[in-house]
Amino acid sequence: MKSILLIGQSNMAGRGFIEDVSPIYNEHINMLRNGRWQMMAEPINFDRHVSGIGPAASFAQAWTADHPGESIGIIPCAEGGSSIDEWAIDGLLTRHAISEAKFAMETSELVGILWHQGESDSYGERYKTYEDKLLSLLKHLREELNAPDIPIIIGELGHYLGEVGFGKSAVEYKQINEILSKVAQTEENCYFVTAKGLTANPDGIHINAMSQRKFGLRYYEAFSKQKHVLDILDMEDEWIEKAPKRELTKKERIFVQSTMFALGQLSFEEFSINISNINESK
Amino acid sequence: MKSILLIGQSNMAGRGFIEDVSPIYNEHINMLRNGRWQMMAEPINFDRHVSGIGPAASFAQAWTADHPGESIGIIPCAEGGSSIDEWAIDGLLTRHAISEAKFAMETSELVGILWHQGESDSYGERYKTYEDKLLSLLKHLREELNAPDIPIIIGELGHYLGEVGFGKSAVEYKQINEILSKVAQTEENCYFVTAKGLTANPDGIHINAMSQRKFGLRYYEAFSKQKHVLDILDMEDEWIEKAPKRELTKKERIFVQSTMFALGQLSFEEFSINISNINESK
Repeated sequence: MKSILLIGQSNMAGRGFIEDVSPIYNEHINMLRNGRWQMMAEPINFDRHVSGIGPAASFAQAWTADHPGESIGIIPCAEGGSSIDEWAIDGLLTRHAISEAKFAMETSELVGILWHQGESDSYGERYKTYEDKLLSLLKHLREELNAPDIPIIIGELGHYLGEVGFGKSAVEYKQINEILSKVAQTEENCYFVTAKGLTANPDGIHINAMSQRKFGLRYYEAFSKQKHVLDILDMEDEWIEKAPKRELTKKERIFVQSTMFALGQLSFEEFSINISNINESK
Repeated sequence: MKSILLIGQSNMAGRGFIEDVSPIYNEHINMLRNGRWQMMAEPINFDRHVSGIGPAASFAQAWTADHPGESIGIIPCAEGGSSIDEWAIDGLLTRHAISEAKFAMETSELVGILWHQGESDSYGERYKTYEDKLLSLLKHLREELNAPDIPIIIGELGHYLGEVGFGKSAVEYKQINEILSKVAQTEENCYFVTAKGLTANPDGIHINAMSQRKFGLRYYEAFSKQKHVLDILDMEDEWIEKAPKRELTKKERIFVQSTMFALGQLSFEEFSINISNINESK
């Protein structure tokens, strides 16, 4: 199995409202829990009790479409509100992410790192020291994970920042975006992903669920083509329209029924009948 | 800060339905996320997307009542469906739990371990080898965590097992309970907690939310008094009746409002007004 490490702050963890998009169930997408793999369900990156939709699920869904029969695992290590200083190479978040990745690498091959961070550094001229700090982190991760050439995908901060709600204080997001772009352009095996057209929750800081689905597709485009993604992808709207129409496998349909039963939405009798029907279907 | 490690299978992680009990908000209760502490909200132990109410929240709530002004942190490492063999000393779950505990111990003093496991070993005469395996795990944890005298609280399996639903296959739960009791009685600093009177979700295997609140109080009684808890506590019903009446602090009220806003249940204007009102209240 291949695996992908998620690091950064809340928009990598995901704060899109779960009820705003159709769920993604896919038996070939896993997430790390207690050092082991479980079939994916959102929220993947449960750094907070309010965690929701991030870019990882649509990234992984796109990956599986390109790799029939293969599986991918998501290693969720993004932390809401974290600044670049909290991702110092000797900091807890970095050491913990490396530890989680190493557990995952016992049973998978790490093939990529997705980074989205910077809102917490978009004020007070923090951009002036951001580049060196990010470069230091990326170098350290490549060394510690023994992955010198691994693709690192860097997502841009939302263009809606600096305006309203919690996003209002992120007045220097353009300066951070310039640095994110510069790092991606100059570092080997680093790719930049635009946030063009992405919109926010009412808080003015968190990418909404639908935009996170699109963002994940862009991250995947950059990852799979090994190129910068500097514009909206033509296929985004079509992908989102088609996504809920994908027919679920038996295992995925059982997963959905098991979820409903575990949450008390079905009696044991209803659950048993539904599972029998799935098992007897062709 | 003090901290408590949760290990075992799904009934330690928690599968009680969240909507069945009043929520516990307490600024002195934290949970480990990405190696750091966050204010607690349930589900604490997010091993699965269907995770819910476990024993940890009422345990911690009772702890804070006895330790005014102090804080406690929960280290969630329980894993649904795991058997005692999966908790072998060189197994992934054990190594991951030790790793998480060590991250927590950078910023807290580990003062207890809560264990609840055995449903996955309640068939096929697995009880015959369970005692040695559990003893080996407890000895290993004490050594690795450099905590030779730390109290370990062992909860009994539900008396409702072996009857219906997913619980039906746990036909040898009484034999496992005998061993859990024996280990707790013979090992130093180990205490046993009865499951008497606890009831299950419709699945016949998972302790329901209200019973988990009671179970947490029993775990705390065993922990705080350093004794076995072999019967229902007189105060359980009264505690549960009184719990929602505890007045929230300003920080806790802000936490509740921030949760609602983050989940899209309030506009930014409503949220801002509510926060102002809280800050201006006495």
